[in-house]
Amino acid sequence: MKAGIIAIGDEVVSGDVVDTNTLYISRKLTASGYTVKLRIQVPDQREGIIRALDYSLPRVDLLIITGGLGPTGDDITTCVIAEYFGFECMQSEKGYMLLKGAEEIENDVGMIPGMLIKIDNRELLLMPGVPEEMKNIFDRFISRIFTSRTPHLTFRTCGITERMLHEILSSVFQDMKGFHFYPSWRGVDLKIMPDNPEEIQNIRERVIGAIEDYVYAEEDIEIEEVVGKMLRKGGYTISVAESCTGGLVASLITDVPGSSNYFMGGITAYSNDAKIKLLNVSPENIKKYGAVSEQVAEEMAEGVAKVFKTDIGISTTGIAGPTGGTPEKPVGLVYMGVHINGETIVERRIFRPPRGRVKIESSTYLLFMLYRRLKKK
Amino acid sequence: MKAGIIAIGDEVVSGDVVDTNTLYISRKLTASGYTVKLRIQVPDQREGIIRALDYSLPRVDLLIITGGLGPTGDDITTCVIAEYFGFECMQSEKGYMLLKGAEEIENDVGMIPGMLIKIDNRELLLMPGVPEEMKNIFDRFISRIFTSRTPHLTFRTCGITERMLHEILSSVFQDMKGFHFYPSWRGVDLKIMPDNPEEIQNIRERVIGAIEDYVYAEEDIEIEEVVGKMLRKGGYTISVAESCTGGLVASLITDVPGSSNYFMGGITAYSNDAKIKLLNVSPENIKKYGAVSEQVAEEMAEGVAKVFKTDIGISTTGIAGPTGGTPEKPVGLVYMGVHINGETIVERRIFRPPRGRVKIESSTYLLFMLYRRLKKK
Repeated sequence: MKAGIIAIGDEVVSGDVVDTNTLYISRKLTASGYTVKLRIQVPDQREGIIRALDYSLPRVDLLIITGGLGPTGDDITTCVIAEYFGFECMQSEKGYMLLKGAEEIENDVGMIPGMLIKIDNRELLLMPGVPEEMKNIFDRFISRIFTSRTPHLTFRTCGITERMLHEILSSVFQDMKGFHFYPSWRGVDLKIMPDNPEEIQNIRERVIGAIEDYVYAEEDIEIEEVVGKMLRKGGYTISVAESCTGGLVASLITDVPGSSNYFMGGITAYSNDAKIKLLNVSPENIKKYGAVSEQVAEEMAEGVAKVFKTDIGISTTGIAGPTGGTPEKPVGLVYMGVHINGETIVERRIFRPPRGRVKIESSTYLLFMLYRRLKKK
Repeated sequence: MKAGIIAIGDEVVSGDVVDTNTLYISRKLTASGYTVKLRIQVPDQREGIIRALDYSLPRVDLLIITGGLGPTGDDITTCVIAEYFGFECMQSEKGYMLLKGAEEIENDVGMIPGMLIKIDNRELLLMPGVPEEMKNIFDRFISRIFTSRTPHLTFRTCGITERMLHEILSSVFQDMKGFHFYPSWRGVDLKIMPDNPEEIQNIRERVIGAIEDYVYAEEDIEIEEVVGKMLRKGGYTISVAESCTGGLVASLITDVPGSSNYFMGGITAYSNDAKIKLLNVSPENIKKYGAVSEQVAEEMAEGVAKVFKTDIGISTTGIAGPTGGTPEKPVGLVYMGVHINGETIVERRIFRPPRGRVKIESSTYLLFMLYRRLKKK
């Protein structure tokens, strides 16, 4: 099945915003067994949208269109599509335009729904351009297709590069057709769509046998949700002491609805003074080993658990950059601690700059360390 | 002048790689006074490349093509272009293909040069897809040809919806041609590209006169960077007390390099117990007004400034959802406090679910409140 994607918006073609929508959609389509034949971005202009439709339609079975559905005057997509296919374009109560006769696909996080129309044997899906809303609608659309058609495997990994993952798996599988790798700063996702669906269990077992140490989920779920479920199930409480991640670990944990059941709080201690006063880190250790050290990470994890009276305390201390690095302690160096009921384990890792990447990679890895510890319990 | 961009590669359309080239090129073209009329990504297939050329050429003065120039068998771009325009395609000594008669543009970081051809009044530039090589060639091309920058205005706003902004401005400007609104969860950006560049100062003054209260920057810079500069300049130190934002405010502040100069730390106090013990919030106020209240927000901002001995303390307490709302205190309700040298101001706002949106909108708005306070100093 062939698919195409059209993203509409002046801000998209000018590069004022990064077109993450097209990327997101093409990945999901590819992972769902579609071949993406074309991707186009055009401005909010009638003529350009019509030419893009002329060009795309004959070449695809499914056409995804995003952007230009809003209530302001420069959002013209819906009415141009209506005109093109002879549908009626009507104004909703809330001001945006609707394609009369289109099947609506629910949008949980905004007011404009997805609109699906069928023309001959082709499907055409219209979605708003706000990434969160697009994802909400598109995931629903895809999960409908997926369950009806393609058996596949998902493995979410952390703590290993795409290259290493590829190397390990290629020693187990002669043919890696249907294996797709999706690296991000939070880890590498692996999706497998076997040609022969009957092979799926066999493939799963071999994959798990090879990379089990790095897999934290076999579905589309974030590490903080996985860990959240484990904490809840085990009846644990948790608190966080952060230095270089600056509050990001706590923020990730609290992104999960219901996290107030297990998350008691966190302390971001940027200054040495705060580490000493609020987390009970010993000034001697800071002096002897430095604030970025195994010893301080350990004391921070233990200290925060004591302050918040939680079963678990986790910690980060490192050098996020761009400055502050030395040959011995380079930018990207982070110590991460996990303290559970009296026992503390600290890992040292060097993450890749820039600053934002060090923060997100080390926060994710810390949650992965916690996952590993809880799994053993 | 109109421009178009075609990126060629199976890995691009599948989403296996992020197409940073198209983004880079469109930004530079826009900044150089071009209007990007279309951007296309197609696989390494002869038929698809030819159709993309058919579609693009009549619509642009300059067409930029990247990818598929390598020496491997699936890199067919050069020969397809040669065939399309009646040029000769010949193999270089190093194995890659060259367009005979094209003007070569130097590539300092790789072996395949850029190739520039002129057809009628159109220019067509071919470049390799490796981002570093593309940039090396394209920067040379751009700097050589364009020196002028399109004059335009940027306004970043917070605390106002796209619709309201539109309404206010349409009462000031009869014609809003060239006005572009870019809403996100962090606020609405306004970009204005006037037809007549001589009008730009006049337009700027009228915009500022109308929406000054909501503008925090006139360049592409985040609110945490704006506030960071003000804190640095004023010699202030700051700390953060968070409840519903769960560490996100601290994380945003520490996204800015050098924030350790003014940011001392933060406390995320999810439980009432933590609010009382760590931030010195009075149990009576929690009992009387609830943890989500003006009084508690005020005490949190003052409490955290005392704990970290900072000039400024800022705070959030609210209901991020999806559960925990009541008719009186619905999901999305957040109290935000800013305490500066003895004086505390608290604002109450209701943000839109879902949870992630409440977190990011209220964190951004709190930083905007801080911006307003610092501006008055």
